[in-house]
Amino acid sequence: MKNKGLLLVVSGPSGAGKGTVCKALMEQHPEVCMSVSATTRKPRPGEADGVNYYFLEEEQFRSMIENHEFIEWACFCQNYYGTPRKKVEELLEAGKDVILEIEVQGAIQVKSKFPEAVFIFVMPPSMEELEKRLTGRGTEAPEVVAERLETARWECSNIEKYNYILINDEVSLAAERFAAIIQTEKMRIERNGMWIQENLKK
Amino acid sequence: MKNKGLLLVVSGPSGAGKGTVCKALMEQHPEVCMSVSATTRKPRPGEADGVNYYFLEEEQFRSMIENHEFIEWACFCQNYYGTPRKKVEELLEAGKDVILEIEVQGAIQVKSKFPEAVFIFVMPPSMEELEKRLTGRGTEAPEVVAERLETARWECSNIEKYNYILINDEVSLAAERFAAIIQTEKMRIERNGMWIQENLKK
Repeated sequence: MKNKGLLLVVSGPSGAGKGTVCKALMEQHPEVCMSVSATTRKPRPGEADGVNYYFLEEEQFRSMIENHEFIEWACFCQNYYGTPRKKVEELLEAGKDVILEIEVQGAIQVKSKFPEAVFIFVMPPSMEELEKRLTGRGTEAPEVVAERLETARWECSNIEKYNYILINDEVSLAAERFAAIIQTEKMRIERNGMWIQENLKK
Repeated sequence: MKNKGLLLVVSGPSGAGKGTVCKALMEQHPEVCMSVSATTRKPRPGEADGVNYYFLEEEQFRSMIENHEFIEWACFCQNYYGTPRKKVEELLEAGKDVILEIEVQGAIQVKSKFPEAVFIFVMPPSMEELEKRLTGRGTEAPEVVAERLETARWECSNIEKYNYILINDEVSLAAERFAAIIQTEKMRIERNGMWIQENLKK
């Protein structure tokens, strides 16, 4: 029998580069999967159903909420976003490690349903660097920049709900650190009950 | 200010190869230190004071016990063995990672004094392999082999007090996994309070 895969929840303020780090990890470790979210927002040019998102009608999404078919869901800018449970559970059962790249609110929902998940918070090397990245090229309206910073600060204030801080100073280094977390978590005693049972308790 | 170093407690049944794995880790990572134990047993040819052990008289050892100068100590075969506290604490304060390669009884004492320590249990790939290694070449008296196996079984029955199982199938791989544990533990949120304070809470 195989051990279950790891559920890896990755959050962090926008500007931390979490998507880039996950992509770099999967290039080095193609056995790691990324969960595809569902959304009610319309596809943008070039986006494909089942690749970037599962694009659903609002009615479908609402009925999935009622049937508890989401691990987590939220509504941003009048669009729904969520992580369908079935696919993720199938992958985990098959021993695959699955990344959920989600917002802090979503991560909190996952924690209550999958306490054994691994929670990783991606940060740029410093708050100054984050502010620089969020301020952009100075072409955005000050209100937009101020709101982004406020959201980032709220997200960061939840860092202590996570297990690990993954500093994205350089993408390839951050991806290696991410791989070390996966390797290490698989060695945790509580994830090796089957090995212990088979080798030490018979 | 620097983060404190990690206290890495390494145990495992004799025959698991924990000494070899620690040595291989330190060859790849010379910045990791190994704590030198104190003992009242006499030096064997080739052993040097302060390198293999601190060789002490029984009276000195007893007075150190009374003065709480050991992190852990035990008496085996009428000789005392223990880990002097001062040196380990100095290294940790200086940000150095320190390995204690100690017996299960000692590890339990460390856990109550250093709950933040990382507990690693080294195992051969299977119980059959361990039995093979402990049986030796079949030249030992059956009572000696039986006692070794009994001790190994008692040690293994304590595996769930540890954080990680480190399987020593091949020394170089096991040393790499050990390095991944160190790298990962340094990313734990609770070990990054200083970074969080400096970057997120001012």
